[in-house]
Amino acid sequence: MTQETIDKILKFRDDRDWKQFHNPKDLAISLSLEASELLEIFQWSGSDVACTDKKDKIAEELADVVIYCVHMADACNLDLDEIVQKKLAVNEEKYPVNKAKGRSDKYSEL
Amino acid sequence: MTQETIDKILKFRDDRDWKQFHNPKDLAISLSLEASELLEIFQWSGSDVACTDKKDKIAEELADVVIYCVHMADACNLDLDEIVQKKLAVNEEKYPVNKAKGRSDKYSEL
Amino acid sequence: MTQETIDKILKFRDDRDWKQFHNPKDLAISLSLEASELLEIFQWSGSDVACTDKKDKIAEELADVVIYCVHMADACNLDLDEIVQKKLAVNEEKYPVNKAKGRSDKYSEL
Amino acid sequence: MTQETIDKILKFRDDRDWKQFHNPKDLAISLSLEASELLEIFQWSGSDVACTDKKDKIAEELADVVIYCVHMADACNLDLDEIVQKKLAVNEEKYPVNKAKGRSDKYSEL
Repeated sequence: MTQETIDKILKFRDDRDWKQFHNPKDLAISLSLEASELLEIFQWSGSDVACTDKKDKIAEELADVVIYCVHMADACNLDLDEIVQKKLAVNEEKYPVNKAKGRSDKYSEL
Repeated sequence: MTQETIDKILKFRDDRDWKQFHNPKDLAISLSLEASELLEIFQWSGSDVACTDKKDKIAEELADVVIYCVHMADACNLDLDEIVQKKLAVNEEKYPVNKAKGRSDKYSEL
Repeated sequence: MTQETIDKILKFRDDRDWKQFHNPKDLAISLSLEASELLEIFQWSGSDVACTDKKDKIAEELADVVIYCVHMADACNLDLDEIVQKKLAVNEEKYPVNKAKGRSDKYSEL
Repeated sequence: MTQETIDKILKFRDDRDWKQFHNPKDLAISLSLEASELLEIFQWSGSDVACTDKKDKIAEELADVVIYCVHMADACNLDLDEIVQKKLAVNEEKYPVNKAKGRSDKYSEL
């Protein structure tokens, strides 16, 4: 995601003077609600459902989740690249390739 | 978020041969679960809680959400910049500055 | 669910002097978090997963959800029988038998 | 909640021949989605929001959560009284009165 997109997300917020509402607790609630709207697309569908059937709806709801991720990162002064790369390093420890390859189990059950 | 970070996320998945599990329904479930883990940080806390108190934990859980956003986008062949900019245009219509400025109401109540 | 069980749930709360924390917003957050813990049991599992494999874990997480339902009802002075029967009447309208029988579609798509 | 209410919930399902869709994974998804709709009522509201402002909406969404709890219990052959009383006993251990009284901390932090 380019800095230009991130800047547009934050400008949208600032144009509406919404930063005052963006405490981390309420942002986490909204992020969770948007993730549920994404999940709702798949309510009662099989695991074999393809993206193609619902691509526009998925795009829209996923975008809302991403937008709140950017707001949360901004509110807490976090850099997305930095936190993701740090977390990947943690996950490398939890899910070493030789144990996790081809398995969907949680790390505690590997 | 740089392409380098996105590539690392996808390489992590491919090194473990996990793409086979990444149908959109199960990705949406995981994304929702990670969003809940982020929200759990704020369970019973006031809305005035500051990021600083829990910054490392927020960073870790937010990173997990972002990682699943990248997996979902990849699984459905979506470009994050494109879908976000498209959604911002939709939101511009729903939340015009003159109506939404300084208000946290849902668009249907503006 | 008997009144005895409901009374035990509320006594548990009152013994710990927790009613002071039970505003509806924070109860709704906790209820949502517990529902996610129930869902987590099925992360990456097929839709054909049977209850039997995970019955104890399901029982435990479902109980947590039910406990918060009782707390929310008590906090808002709602009677579970009354609200459920009222909602079933609404759902009867949304999902008439002749349209909804054997179909998992949302009412807006029937 | 009376057996009569539970029977009505199950009759509603059976009249529509919906038991075929009620595997525990999809029920857990629906339960989580309904819990999110309850939470959405409190999006951006303060923790001091009173039930009275939104009582009808809370009643409706809470009812949906309870209905899915009954479906999940039925699908997995669980008795709500039994699982709740069992869980309360577990919680008694995790949150002993002398440690937990007047505190909202998680058991791991008491």
